[in-house]
Amino acid sequence: MSLIENFTKPYGLVDKIDAFGYLDSLKNNPDAPRKHGKVVLVTADTPLKASRGEGKTTTTIALIDALNARGIDAAAVLRQPSMGITAAGSKGGASGGGKASLTHPELIDWGLCGEMGAIEAAQNLLASFAEKAVDDGLLDTVIVPRVSEVPSRSLRSVVVDAGKNDVHEKTVLTPTCELMQIVVLSRSMDEIAERVAKMIAGTKDGKAVTFGEFIDLWRITNILADAVKPAKTETKNGSPVYVHGGPFANVSIGIPSLVSVEMACALHDVVIVEAGYGADAGAQKWLDIACREYGAQWPSAAVVVTRASTWRDDPALQWRYPFHVERLEGLGIPTFPLINLWDGEDDQVPALRQTAADLGFRAPIVGNLYRDGGDALVPQLDAFTEAVSAEDAPETPASHKGMPLVENVKWVCEHAYGVPSDRVVMKPGFEESLEAARALAEDAGVAFDDLALVAVKSPATMTDNDAAPADERTVTLKKVDVHSGAGLVHVNLTTSLTTPMPKIV
Amino acid sequence: MSLIENFTKPYGLVDKIDAFGYLDSLKNNPDAPRKHGKVVLVTADTPLKASRGEGKTTTTIALIDALNARGIDAAAVLRQPSMGITAAGSKGGASGGGKASLTHPELIDWGLCGEMGAIEAAQNLLASFAEKAVDDGLLDTVIVPRVSEVPSRSLRSVVVDAGKNDVHEKTVLTPTCELMQIVVLSRSMDEIAERVAKMIAGTKDGKAVTFGEFIDLWRITNILADAVKPAKTETKNGSPVYVHGGPFANVSIGIPSLVSVEMACALHDVVIVEAGYGADAGAQKWLDIACREYGAQWPSAAVVVTRASTWRDDPALQWRYPFHVERLEGLGIPTFPLINLWDGEDDQVPALRQTAADLGFRAPIVGNLYRDGGDALVPQLDAFTEAVSAEDAPETPASHKGMPLVENVKWVCEHAYGVPSDRVVMKPGFEESLEAARALAEDAGVAFDDLALVAVKSPATMTDNDAAPADERTVTLKKVDVHSGAGLVHVNLTTSLTTPMPKIV
Repeated sequence: MSLIENFTKPYGLVDKIDAFGYLDSLKNNPDAPRKHGKVVLVTADTPLKASRGEGKTTTTIALIDALNARGIDAAAVLRQPSMGITAAGSKGGASGGGKASLTHPELIDWGLCGEMGAIEAAQNLLASFAEKAVDDGLLDTVIVPRVSEVPSRSLRSVVVDAGKNDVHEKTVLTPTCELMQIVVLSRSMDEIAERVAKMIAGTKDGKAVTFGEFIDLWRITNILADAVKPAKTETKNGSPVYVHGGPFANVSIGIPSLVSVEMACALHDVVIVEAGYGADAGAQKWLDIACREYGAQWPSAAVVVTRASTWRDDPALQWRYPFHVERLEGLGIPTFPLINLWDGEDDQVPALRQTAADLGFRAPIVGNLYRDGGDALVPQLDAFTEAVSAEDAPETPASHKGMPLVENVKWVCEHAYGVPSDRVVMKPGFEESLEAARALAEDAGVAFDDLALVAVKSPATMTDNDAAPADERTVTLKKVDVHSGAGLVHVNLTTSLTTPMPKIV
Repeated sequence: MSLIENFTKPYGLVDKIDAFGYLDSLKNNPDAPRKHGKVVLVTADTPLKASRGEGKTTTTIALIDALNARGIDAAAVLRQPSMGITAAGSKGGASGGGKASLTHPELIDWGLCGEMGAIEAAQNLLASFAEKAVDDGLLDTVIVPRVSEVPSRSLRSVVVDAGKNDVHEKTVLTPTCELMQIVVLSRSMDEIAERVAKMIAGTKDGKAVTFGEFIDLWRITNILADAVKPAKTETKNGSPVYVHGGPFANVSIGIPSLVSVEMACALHDVVIVEAGYGADAGAQKWLDIACREYGAQWPSAAVVVTRASTWRDDPALQWRYPFHVERLEGLGIPTFPLINLWDGEDDQVPALRQTAADLGFRAPIVGNLYRDGGDALVPQLDAFTEAVSAEDAPETPASHKGMPLVENVKWVCEHAYGVPSDRVVMKPGFEESLEAARALAEDAGVAFDDLALVAVKSPATMTDNDAAPADERTVTLKKVDVHSGAGLVHVNLTTSLTTPMPKIV
């Protein structure tokens, strides 16, 4: 029995893997057989609207099927989609489609093994304990939000204990909550407990109070016992797919759990990590948060997915796709454009290839992946596999720890959105919000400028107006929120929803 | 491979069983090998307070271990405890203790396989759809409550869309919601969908509107796909234990799912069904709701658990234990008193046996089940096994369908609580509440007097004051709620909490 089998248990139609235990045992047995797989990032053009995917998951599935067909041991790591908005009909699932599908997409789209429900219960328990701490005089105010997996626009603004104390509370979507971020970023249950202990519950006499000061951490970790285990499923063609962690790179970190990627790298030669929405959200967060600050592997290559129509139908926004491709190439990451065709678009291929050539792109990978799946890609991956198997792995750039927050935000605006620092403007109230956040962090005993930056923004824009001429684009900084347990600081900019609670459709 | 194995899948440390599929296949294959197990009810004395258990689960586990030790194929069916109040510290778990324990109590106490989380998401999705229906002009008011697995006293009264429409909403604990009742009472996914379609979402122009009029039912059933499957675990001694369905017989039906019991009866000779809190809550509901109205099996015997201290420490309440034992005997159910001793109580055994004899009880079963488990029971079960194996199975009494609600309530007060109809009083406003409920039911197309009655009460009292002299005890009827999808009508009486949302401790 191989080492991983000791840590794998069937859960209905999928397996669940104790990734913490497996990675520990690799650490303790340096001679145990393992692989050192390379991470490839699949990201996308900025979508025209949030509900319109470019086909990242479909591409990821087709790509591993094609790589395995070429004899390369490739696996994918996906985030668990938010069941709430799928069930509500706000969007379709996020498990590929057509020939590029999972064996049991319904599991991924409809709650998997209860991970999201467990995280919801645990975060809501934290909110209940904070509320009790108010009764007990340990807190004056509650800061930790309640969560809901199911969207409901009315939950954006909630008054609890109505008619008595009328306490105003915040509710956010479960996949975006700090506890989900902690599950995604932690490498052991002890680390999860330490991070929960550092979460800010609320304030007493104006000073932040953390949960470590008054709750039993085991109550939270008991609830999370199975939620921290990645699920393993496969594509219709039998390629392995790991699913773990919350979506929403627009308002949270939007990456799969670090341990699910590290586990996959120990088991396979190529590991495709999906990071979306667009490169400005998902890729930016994988590179600048997961890699720079949390020790994740810098990608050996990237694939940037677009639809022909996203790329070309809106001239004012056409600059975004080449911008993403060039940014990633500029970071030393071999970056392959991938155009995901829809029915009736086959005749556009020559024109699309010409446009890519005019832009100085690498030869684009083109296919109707819903219709043809991995078969469309097999003959097109020579340059890609060569890049991935290159010996000299790129180095991870230096951490931004210690960089003042505003400088860090301006760095992201310039590098990820193309807006120079003199056009990054602060909305009235931003500086007060910044100082309040800094004070909370310091009360909580965390170094504010060491927190990793999470840009909270619309998935469909990088600037205040992406359609404006390049030299007129601005980014407005609106407010700052500290997630001291996760080690993150959120900065809301452009047209972000501070509480991502879509109206159900 | 046996038939049941075709419907069983491992889920981590437990199995999940497609009970719908298994029972269907038995129906379609009348010659397939199966058993016809007898149901034994384990219930209890009325606890002195809700958070103080008498030891029903401990007894249930010890009992099946003892029966199996005697060569009888016995299994237990337990309800899934509410993780919320366990995690919050309001009570301990509900998975036995000491030598009478499950192999993995932590699973049962801490979320099992996500069943509760899925039901929470599905019920909250219904609330979101009702809210959207208000936006769309299909509803004027929302009646369906939101749910939370985690208790929080402030959720008793919530205003959503605060500052805009200020909509007052109700939140109940997930295990008590109508969708949980539907999962517990339904025998197929189609029946679940039909029942959800009959749930009242809210009102339009004062008339009830059901979900069947405006939602896609598949969105709900997709979420419930795994939640409808009972979990199978075992005692430390290897006796089989099935766990499925929500607790809280005080404010809901508090019984395990009907299919989990029927499945167990097809697989084992004796099936112990736990029904609590006290006999006035759990047993009353198993007998008068599950058996009379939903076709569950009338028990072949009953065990009524008490602690020596519960029985004897409060003279004013001593009448309750014999009342429960005599009521069950009076229904033709051989009823065995079981006294669950605590440390230091062994010397009380002779006195307890004498008291039981003076009361004309069957010889009581006595043991320290935490300390000794089933070993304490093995030598005491001759009369019990004889009663269970008796050929002439008792007949289920007639349904109360068509009985006017108030008459039905008075019948329960007289038979289950010992209060004659002339001392059942109506609180001002009760009759208006009754007429409003009747109107809603009729709008929803269900016959009001055919709904099964759910007495919503305190777990610790049967009357307005159990300590009053017998001829002065009263029951006050307070309000009526219709659960038209589940086919139930709730009547709040005595000191019930209309929203069971304990303050966390």
